[in-house]
Amino acid sequence: MGRGILFVVSAPAGCGKDTILEKALAKDINLCYSVSATTRTMRPGETDGISYYFKSRKEFEQMIADGELLEHTEYCGNYYGTPKDTVEETLNGGKNVVLKIEIEGAGNIKKLIPESVLIFILPPSMEELSRRLHKRGTEDEETICKRLKQAETEIACAEKYDYVIVNGDIDEAVENFVSVIKAESFKTVRNKDLILKIKANNM
Amino acid sequence: MGRGILFVVSAPAGCGKDTILEKALAKDINLCYSVSATTRTMRPGETDGISYYFKSRKEFEQMIADGELLEHTEYCGNYYGTPKDTVEETLNGGKNVVLKIEIEGAGNIKKLIPESVLIFILPPSMEELSRRLHKRGTEDEETICKRLKQAETEIACAEKYDYVIVNGDIDEAVENFVSVIKAESFKTVRNKDLILKIKANNM
Repeated sequence: MGRGILFVVSAPAGCGKDTILEKALAKDINLCYSVSATTRTMRPGETDGISYYFKSRKEFEQMIADGELLEHTEYCGNYYGTPKDTVEETLNGGKNVVLKIEIEGAGNIKKLIPESVLIFILPPSMEELSRRLHKRGTEDEETICKRLKQAETEIACAEKYDYVIVNGDIDEAVENFVSVIKAESFKTVRNKDLILKIKANNM
Repeated sequence: MGRGILFVVSAPAGCGKDTILEKALAKDINLCYSVSATTRTMRPGETDGISYYFKSRKEFEQMIADGELLEHTEYCGNYYGTPKDTVEETLNGGKNVVLKIEIEGAGNIKKLIPESVLIFILPPSMEELSRRLHKRGTEDEETICKRLKQAETEIACAEKYDYVIVNGDIDEAVENFVSVIKAESFKTVRNKDLILKIKANNM
C-alpha cells in the first residue's frame, strides 16, 4: 500500500468549502479530514477537536516551540496551525488527508511537501458570492464588504493552486472535487511500485 | 470556452482499452474519439471511418507528404497515424479528444503537444492478462506468448505516462478513467482565464 496523498483546500468565505468537504468526506474515497489548531474563539455550533483544536495563545506557542505543527500562520490576529503527527500517521497508513487552510498556510504546505495537492474553491461570480454572503445573514454590511474585498485578493492567489473548482451547483462541485481526489491517486509518479509489481506478477 | 484537452490512451493487447473507451465515450464528459488512419487490413467486425480510416500504403504516404498527420509510426509492418485536422478542430471547439495510440506514437504526441495527457491501462497482473488472452480464444499459443512478452515491454514504458489505471473490474476502471478526464479540466493551468473572469465578474 502506498503513502496517502495530502490535499489542501482553500476558499474565500461563502464559497461553500465546508459543505463540499463534509459531503466528500461522507463518500468512500479513502479521505480523512485533519483538524487544525487555532487560538480563535469557539463559535456557536463548533466543537473542540472536531471543528478545531481550540488552544490558548500560550498553549499554541508551546506547540510551535515543541515542533508539533507542520505549519502555522497568524490570520486576523489569531494563530492557525496543522498538527504534524496525525497528518504523518494517516498518510503513512495509506490514507489521503485533507486540510482546510487559508492561502498563506497552503503555500507553506506546498513548499514543505511538494507532492501535496492544492485545491481552490471558486464562487461562480463575485455577484453570486455577494448574494450568498447577504443570504446567510450572519454578518453586517461592513463585514460583507470586507469579505468580498478579501475574496478578490484570495481569488488572485488561486493561480498558485493545482486545481480550481467552481461551486455553482453544490452536488456538481462535490462530484468534481471527488474526481480530483480520485484522479490524483492514478498519477504515474505515485504508482511506480505498482507498475513494477504488475510486471513482476506479485500483486 | 477554453480549448479542449488531448488525451492519449495506450495499453497492451487484452487490457480492455477498447471497452473502457467505449463506455467512457457513452458518458456525458465532453469527450470525442478521434479515429486513426492505418494501412493494416480491416478485421471482421471493423468499419472504415469508425474503427480506423483504412488506407493503402500509397494513400498513407501521400497523407504524410501532405502534412495531414499529427504523428505516424510503423508498427508490426503497418503504418498508423493521427489525422491532424479533426483533432485540431475538435480541440478548438472546446471538446476533449481521446486518441488510442501505441507507445511510440503516444510519446510523439507528448513531445508535439506537451499539455496532452497520457493514460496507460494496466492489467491487474501478468497472470490475469494471460488468462484473458487465452479466454478470448482468437489467438494461438505462440501469438499469446508473443503478446505477453510485448505487454511486459510496454508496461515498462508506463512510467512515461501521466496516469496509470488498472483494469481489474471494468466498471471501476471506467469510473477511474472518467475521474481523470474530469479532473484534468480543473487544473489551474487550464483555467487562468476563468479565474480572471470570476474576479472581473464577467461569467
